[in-house]
Amino acid sequence: MRPRVGHIQFLNCLPLYHMLVKSGAVLSLDLYKDTPTGLSRRFFAGELDISPIPAIEYARHASSALLLPDFTVSSCGRVKSILLVSTVPADALDRRPVALANVSATSQVLLRIILKERYHVRPRYFECPPDLPEMLREADAALLIGDDALRVWARKPRGMQVYDLGEEWTRLTGQAMVYAVWAVRREYAMRCPDRVREVHAAFKRSMESSLRSRASIARAISRWEPFSERFLASYFKTLRYEFGEPYRRGLLEYYRMAKDLREIGAVPRLEFFDCRPPAPCGRARTCGGDA
Amino acid sequence: MRPRVGHIQFLNCLPLYHMLVKSGAVLSLDLYKDTPTGLSRRFFAGELDISPIPAIEYARHASSALLLPDFTVSSCGRVKSILLVSTVPADALDRRPVALANVSATSQVLLRIILKERYHVRPRYFECPPDLPEMLREADAALLIGDDALRVWARKPRGMQVYDLGEEWTRLTGQAMVYAVWAVRREYAMRCPDRVREVHAAFKRSMESSLRSRASIARAISRWEPFSERFLASYFKTLRYEFGEPYRRGLLEYYRMAKDLREIGAVPRLEFFDCRPPAPCGRARTCGGDA
Repeated sequence: MRPRVGHIQFLNCLPLYHMLVKSGAVLSLDLYKDTPTGLSRRFFAGELDISPIPAIEYARHASSALLLPDFTVSSCGRVKSILLVSTVPADALDRRPVALANVSATSQVLLRIILKERYHVRPRYFECPPDLPEMLREADAALLIGDDALRVWARKPRGMQVYDLGEEWTRLTGQAMVYAVWAVRREYAMRCPDRVREVHAAFKRSMESSLRSRASIARAISRWEPFSERFLASYFKTLRYEFGEPYRRGLLEYYRMAKDLREIGAVPRLEFFDCRPPAPCGRARTCGGDA
Repeated sequence: MRPRVGHIQFLNCLPLYHMLVKSGAVLSLDLYKDTPTGLSRRFFAGELDISPIPAIEYARHASSALLLPDFTVSSCGRVKSILLVSTVPADALDRRPVALANVSATSQVLLRIILKERYHVRPRYFECPPDLPEMLREADAALLIGDDALRVWARKPRGMQVYDLGEEWTRLTGQAMVYAVWAVRREYAMRCPDRVREVHAAFKRSMESSLRSRASIARAISRWEPFSERFLASYFKTLRYEFGEPYRRGLLEYYRMAKDLREIGAVPRLEFFDCRPPAPCGRARTCGGDA
């Protein structure tokens, strides 16, 4: 059976999908598209073998998943697609209702961290579907992610304060922010390590060529999206897809602050699937964490 | 928005998918994969704009859909993937329980026609999920379609009578059998005729090149499927994807017999979307039917 692989259905992962199609690699995958939380639910239910998942979900289920090295969805500063849209300044949100889009998980915790540590407020949070007018009927501010957020960013609605949570995070900590990681179920990694290596290699190639082709991808997809070619090209430059040291440090810092807020029980070790060809005593490589 | 297009998730449509990927055409579609009945449900609920649907469903909803010319899933004689698997000879099935896989619609009616007209029996039919051992626990025979049927065909289980419904149909009527047609919602065809023309053209190119490349596609996908390259190549030759006169005649004959069984209220006209560039007084072309 083809590996069952998740794919984030937001614009942020469209360059990757574009290249998975162009290279034909998608023909060797049983690809399933959904929101980050939708993918996470399916992944931990055993219905997907490899998938991008919200960074916070790895911390919550690290015993059943390994990380793939080399790619994430990240930003270093501004991200444009994870926004708090507020009718009042952020420091006036104490005890006020704040609506959280129910399609992400990482950014919900990120918002709690930022409002507590940077603005010293503790709003009353509630979850709901990502519909801005509906959200602001009940709340003084709303967390939006993905394409919904990007539409707000592109329009710059009047009378609203728009906080870019990537920018806020980097101002707060000086670190990069990792929103999504690619994970493989440990059970699948044990059973089909060669398949995982193949998928990793195909994704790596597609990721690299999508970074080289950002401009032409922006041109191709601007036909179908409610954004101009220029806006898309600039957005794809804003995003980072790496998982090098600065991103690992940023992720562990995020986990530490999430633990302080009791959103996770412990800071997990970042335990990676070993993508090198098998060695006699090959073992998973790890770094950081409480353990 | 990209056209929302359905795709049958069975092997019979994999060559087409293969070429939609290879040509990059899939990047201009919002493609949704499902069983024929699943697609039909979504299509008539307005969630898909263009989709393959079971041939019988067009007859049931002809007022809200137009056919795309040029392609179907059909056979002329043997089809291998629409089977009655029976523990007794077909003419011994009178008043006996027969289980119908709940993932198709056309073949359910086809089976009723064949058992009545060729074997002169009227079993007690019931619908259930496509699981052969489970089906035969309750029934003396089971209708399977798609990959489930193909697995039975490849294994040739002992002590079972296996009836190929494509072969049975052609013996009964001398005609070709059309299992699935591609349809566009009339509302979408009115609103976005150029999009429909583009999708039709992309499918036509992909269908043509998939027919030329059947052997190499069989080789590529045999890695992932529980069938040998040779078996797949032979299966892809068995299938027909045309919609020329013999197929239209066969389809209308099927509708007439389905009407006699009161499975449909009337034989519909085959009303086609006009894929030619728009002319001053362009109108939909029709052929056959009661009207």
